[in-house]
Amino acid sequence: LYSEKVLDHFSNPRNVGELSDANGVGEVGNAVCGDIMKMYLKIENGMIQDVKFKTFGCGAAIATSSMATELIKGKSLEDALKLSNQAVITALDGLPPAKIHCSVLAEQAVRAALADYYRRQ
Amino acid sequence: LYSEKVLDHFSNPRNVGELSDANGVGEVGNAVCGDIMKMYLKIENGMIQDVKFKTFGCGAAIATSSMATELIKGKSLEDALKLSNQAVITALDGLPPAKIHCSVLAEQAVRAALADYYRRQ
Ligand code: FES
Repeated sequence: LYSEKVLDHFSNPRNVGELSDANGVGEVGNAVCGDIMKMYLKIENGMIQDVKFKTFGCGAAIATSSMATELIKGKSLEDALKLSNQAVITALDGLPPAKIHCSVLAEQAVRAALADYYRRQ
Repeated sequence: LYSEKVLDHFSNPRNVGELSDANGVGEVGNAVCGDIMKMYLKIENGMIQDVKFKTFGCGAAIATSSMATELIKGKSLEDALKLSNQAVITALDGLPPAKIHCSVLAEQAVRAALADYYRRQ
């Protein structure tokens, strides 16, 4: 059902937690299942210096957020804004169709956190 | 958003895993979110001697299944059949409305495992 990479990122999620010095914070909810995702960004010189996430969502939400944080860490804001849930799913070697809706949480939370950062400038 | 008990059972879920000597196994899926729950029962003399569960579902699914397994462990089959998701939610001091659909996974998985047990007799 789930790829090795999904199981790895679910059992061993990267970048879980909060960032006390975040300067961009996004929180989004999922209309399908009611889950919430919170994303913290520490941005300096136009780069994502650090990123952490918190969720009470399912294994697919955890795995996609874990992968998404890895994909944007150390990247420019432009690259982070281009992150798509399809790119995250591909990096995880796929997700079952019923769980695609979970992957949008990560993409939307990153965008919400970036929007929050721009708003604060 | 979540009660202390929900957070406790999410961070510290009871009875997670598989039972190699289970004589009743149930697997159910959630039509809302696509999550799956697997429940293993070890039944002797009409009593639930042991129970374990596995899921890739969200925090609410984990917390309700953890509580459900505690509520039926050591109980008679009749008591286990009477377990309702409302009883589990009450024991957890409530769940947000958007997460009620997750709590039915535990109830349905217990019933599916009991049905499997009866089928094997
Ligand atoms: S969102 Fe799927 S079980 Fe909770």
